[in-house]
Amino acid sequence: MIVQFSIIPLGVGVSLSEYVAKVIEIVDASGLPYKFHAMGTIVEGDWDEVMNLIKKCRDILMEDLERILIDIRIDDRKGAKNRIEGKVLSVEKRVKRTIIK
Amino acid sequence: MIVQFSIIPLGVGVSLSEYVAKVIEIVDASGLPYKFHAMGTIVEGDWDEVMNLIKKCRDILMEDLERILIDIRIDDRKGAKNRIEGKVLSVEKRVKRTIIK
Amino acid sequence: MIVQFSIIPLGVGVSLSEYVAKVIEIVDASGLPYKFHAMGTIVEGDWDEVMNLIKKCRDILMEDLERILIDIRIDDRKGAKNRIEGKVLSVEKRVKRTIIK
Amino acid sequence: MIVQFSIIPLGVGVSLSEYVAKVIEIVDASGLPYKFHAMGTIVEGDWDEVMNLIKKCRDILMEDLERILIDIRIDDRKGAKNRIEGKVLSVEKRVKRTIIK
Repeated sequence: MIVQFSIIPLGVGVSLSEYVAKVIEIVDASGLPYKFHAMGTIVEGDWDEVMNLIKKCRDILMEDLERILIDIRIDDRKGAKNRIEGKVLSVEKRVKRTIIK
Repeated sequence: MIVQFSIIPLGVGVSLSEYVAKVIEIVDASGLPYKFHAMGTIVEGDWDEVMNLIKKCRDILMEDLERILIDIRIDDRKGAKNRIEGKVLSVEKRVKRTIIK
Repeated sequence: MIVQFSIIPLGVGVSLSEYVAKVIEIVDASGLPYKFHAMGTIVEGDWDEVMNLIKKCRDILMEDLERILIDIRIDDRKGAKNRIEGKVLSVEKRVKRTIIK
Repeated sequence: MIVQFSIIPLGVGVSLSEYVAKVIEIVDASGLPYKFHAMGTIVEGDWDEVMNLIKKCRDILMEDLERILIDIRIDDRKGAKNRIEGKVLSVEKRVKRTIIK
């Protein structure tokens, strides 16, 4: 399955990039395929792989924080693989001219 | 922590209430405190309790479906309990007149 | 259409209830049907009614804040009305015993 | 402000790429900066620019559909510009080695 998640620390001011960087390092170390963009991180894996990864990010952030919000969106399709790139390509084929950046 | 989730089955037509009812029965059987509303289900528990419950809902729905989308929002605050009611009450105290329904 | 939204102010500490109360007062004054729960506010209306209401909440909060996050989920179904209660009832009819609280 | 949105058509089967392609063409024609990824589309603009664009996507899809779900996440920060790239770069600077793809 393919999963987008973002973690919002509260009580640390308006800039969150320090915490997002921590999350990215944990995601990168997991070895799972991922893509980081301006509104979250997309990871591909099975349920336990991805959910344990997000739990690990949460556990590490909560060592220093009192409250976090986490947003998770899952797209679970039987038998589908390599979807971080694949979903984009299947749309791009249908768009009249090449506009995907 | 307090968690809102909703599961969207694809490929089953525009009416989803049959699947939502299945989810509610699974949530109810878990024994965790919950509240069901028009846009999702709110559950309170620790990480493993809540995530295993959502996984169970997903596993049961995916027996008959090819693709589902799941939306999960977590509010994780150290030491906080009874927040399904508590968060509403703490806002209500601040509202000038009683408007919470 | 039926819309759930929540506004998260950043840079104001871990307690957000003061800001949520402001939002509820604005929603209540709009006259639109709404329901407030622990993870957001559900409003029913047409596109412009609901979006102008959320914009108003955002404009008022941004007078005093530097950054907010807003989460909006829309369920738009042709011809459907009274869905804040109606969606819950249509699920409840399918649940084997009365468990909706 | 920077906004991620995704539109989920119901009642059209499990493959949604035809509808996503329609949305991308409308977004591309708007002239607003955007980035399309596997879980949604990120657009930057002021409130009315972005919300009118999403409304246009919804209006066109609803010509042929009975029900759609729309998910919108807004990050609104005073005075911030060029954030589709900028937010990624500000995190990348903090990550120990270059891992952003």
